[in-house]
Amino acid sequence: MLFVTKRLSFCAAHRLFNPGLNDEENAKLFGKCSFPGGHGHNYTLEVTVCGDVDKETGMIIDVKVLKGIIECEVVSKLDHKNLNTDVAFLKDTIPSVENIVMKIWDILNEKIDKGRLYEVKLFETKDNAAIYRIDQKKT
Amino acid sequence: MLFVTKRLSFCAAHRLFNPGLNDEENAKLFGKCSFPGGHGHNYTLEVTVCGDVDKETGMIIDVKVLKGIIECEVVSKLDHKNLNTDVAFLKDTIPSVENIVMKIWDILNEKIDKGRLYEVKLFETKDNAAIYRIDQKKT
Amino acid sequence: MLFVTKRLSFCAAHRLFNPGLNDEENAKLFGKCSFPGGHGHNYTLEVTVCGDVDKETGMIIDVKVLKGIIECEVVSKLDHKNLNTDVAFLKDTIPSVENIVMKIWDILNEKIDKGRLYEVKLFETKDNAAIYRIDQKKT
Amino acid sequence: MLFVTKRLSFCAAHRLFNPGLNDEENAKLFGKCSFPGGHGHNYTLEVTVCGDVDKETGMIIDVKVLKGIIECEVVSKLDHKNLNTDVAFLKDTIPSVENIVMKIWDILNEKIDKGRLYEVKLFETKDNAAIYRIDQKKT
Amino acid sequence: MLFVTKRLSFCAAHRLFNPGLNDEENAKLFGKCSFPGGHGHNYTLEVTVCGDVDKETGMIIDVKVLKGIIECEVVSKLDHKNLNTDVAFLKDTIPSVENIVMKIWDILNEKIDKGRLYEVKLFETKDNAAIYRIDQKKT
Amino acid sequence: MLFVTKRLSFCAAHRLFNPGLNDEENAKLFGKCSFPGGHGHNYTLEVTVCGDVDKETGMIIDVKVLKGIIECEVVSKLDHKNLNTDVAFLKDTIPSVENIVMKIWDILNEKIDKGRLYEVKLFETKDNAAIYRIDQKKT
Repeated sequence: MLFVTKRLSFCAAHRLFNPGLNDEENAKLFGKCSFPGGHGHNYTLEVTVCGDVDKETGMIIDVKVLKGIIECEVVSKLDHKNLNTDVAFLKDTIPSVENIVMKIWDILNEKIDKGRLYEVKLFETKDNAAIYRIDQKKT
Repeated sequence: MLFVTKRLSFCAAHRLFNPGLNDEENAKLFGKCSFPGGHGHNYTLEVTVCGDVDKETGMIIDVKVLKGIIECEVVSKLDHKNLNTDVAFLKDTIPSVENIVMKIWDILNEKIDKGRLYEVKLFETKDNAAIYRIDQKKT
Repeated sequence: MLFVTKRLSFCAAHRLFNPGLNDEENAKLFGKCSFPGGHGHNYTLEVTVCGDVDKETGMIIDVKVLKGIIECEVVSKLDHKNLNTDVAFLKDTIPSVENIVMKIWDILNEKIDKGRLYEVKLFETKDNAAIYRIDQKKT
Repeated sequence: MLFVTKRLSFCAAHRLFNPGLNDEENAKLFGKCSFPGGHGHNYTLEVTVCGDVDKETGMIIDVKVLKGIIECEVVSKLDHKNLNTDVAFLKDTIPSVENIVMKIWDILNEKIDKGRLYEVKLFETKDNAAIYRIDQKKT
Repeated sequence: MLFVTKRLSFCAAHRLFNPGLNDEENAKLFGKCSFPGGHGHNYTLEVTVCGDVDKETGMIIDVKVLKGIIECEVVSKLDHKNLNTDVAFLKDTIPSVENIVMKIWDILNEKIDKGRLYEVKLFETKDNAAIYRIDQKKT
Repeated sequence: MLFVTKRLSFCAAHRLFNPGLNDEENAKLFGKCSFPGGHGHNYTLEVTVCGDVDKETGMIIDVKVLKGIIECEVVSKLDHKNLNTDVAFLKDTIPSVENIVMKIWDILNEKIDKGRLYEVKLFETKDNAAIYRIDQKKT
């Protein structure tokens, strides 16, 4: 199996907050991640596509094209934004790294038309990340 | 000249905004860095102290002590906070990386009592940083 | 499949040494890694848990809880220790990165009670690592 | 499943160019990656071997031996070379990161005789990589 | 003293070659760095500007403006190029990291009109770099 | 002023321990860094030389030569060693990062005969480092 991976970054603010709970419950559940003023991260996004090599190019998918899709569909909508209030595809979603990575998967999975989306990994910090990946047993 | 450097991190939200200007002027001046919802960063802070070695310890200053001062006086006040609204020592300050690093210098310069504060470097992203340093010509 | 990964670090001394062999045989087998005075590393540990998102939190497992388990059960027992002599769970084990990662797996697999432990990766240096992972064909 | 990973680096020049197309077509297909003078990268190669622990050594394969194989069979043939003109095993191959990683797989898969080659990952830059891996469904 | 630093990257091919020497002498002097087909690097460029904070912006110089100058005047002329043959400002220059960094200094020193250029650092690999800096004793 | 920097790594064990103090005093002074079994680090060493460019080579000093000096005089004597017991030039020295960096300076300053040693920086971890540098006011 052959894969190609592209990494991009964006900066955003967020706050872990469940609107179905009151402030005290949110504070207890999420601690400092729920402070009302919010905080933020330099997120790093790694997108992996699997497939066969195109004989004409030697590539699964041109990484410049892949980069363009990721920038247009995902990064431009998240960069320098507040993930609780500014992003249409995160409305009514607690902006945890797990929830964000699943939303990014859904968006990219519709748009990548050469090769097949295999994995999306999102780092919130260099020490915390979430991954969404095809279930190999089902493929 | 001998130096010791300690690196720590914190996550915060901010927005570049000059309250003396209107929204349009801020948008023109700061671009996406001024979006109303704010954004955020994983900041990395590097603090450098110069001095002579204490014969008993082989150290300029115990880095555990230095880490404690930085965490107590700086990191605990910035981590998971909104730099525009939540931090007393940044009130009435545009939270640019240059302004923040100078404020951190002033705080640490008062508190470090072994060796001498030489440099504070603050990374906003891995690609952007500000440095405040003693002017060697004046020392 | 959804995963969350947490990274932590510790510093330890070790020496590759098989007590069933004599000094000459150890020197031949392990080279400089067997020098009697030992050497050491800044180890980096990456723990990955898979599972479904808890609707209330948006998380598989709270990374602060995950971090607490790893620190209490693993890092506190290895950090600033000699892996040949100071660690109960490594007694009678050659402290190779492969052996250590399997021991850490066994410990964490018993303690993580939300989601399911998927992978433990241990870097001895930035260029050398071992990984222990669920065999997907058996799951 | 247990794995061990070794990372090595090399520096090389290359140019994306399909000799079956004319200059204009290459320029259109590959953009700046096809500039006639070529460009280059600091490549990073990560080789992962899976297997069981040898009781005598605590290792799947001695990483010093693994490093020796990779240096002798791969790195020495690519380091400080032009990948379009200087490398026998890349003759008649567009030196895309996908094509190079598959060639490296073939070479190492013949030479690693302890454990079993599981994955080869090649970074062209810190943001672009290709991976070749055993298909787990077929194993 | 206050500084701001911006980091950018580019990929280029080069070969160490002194046209005043014959092939044998070049091979002896530069070793593998002089192989005729050339090799290449992912260069990382760090540009540091010193100055006072502009009260209106909280910045020495807007890093977006600084980035624009570096991209336009330097990176666009070096990225995906062959440094021996394709770059006007490196004609008749051995493209060592020292020579390149001094040429970049001269170009940027003319173009940066807010604050004052303090240092240019160029990494050829993560382990090799050259720095050109204002001589503080002369300032 | 022009500089060239070379980075190398080594792995070693150490323990902070002042032989002029008893065990209790050492434990109080150094905490976990003084545990009797010792611990260890992946040290990273950055050596910076200043000087003028040699017209024939375009270099201050050939980094391959510089690397050879550092490996022969420093790294080979520290790598895979116990810094408390195995290293002649650290005998009777508390192996703090400050003391080690000053000893490395003294050794390299005698051996580098092209350009002039400007700075030695030693990272004990990615977050802790010591620097020894020429005092510019005295030069």
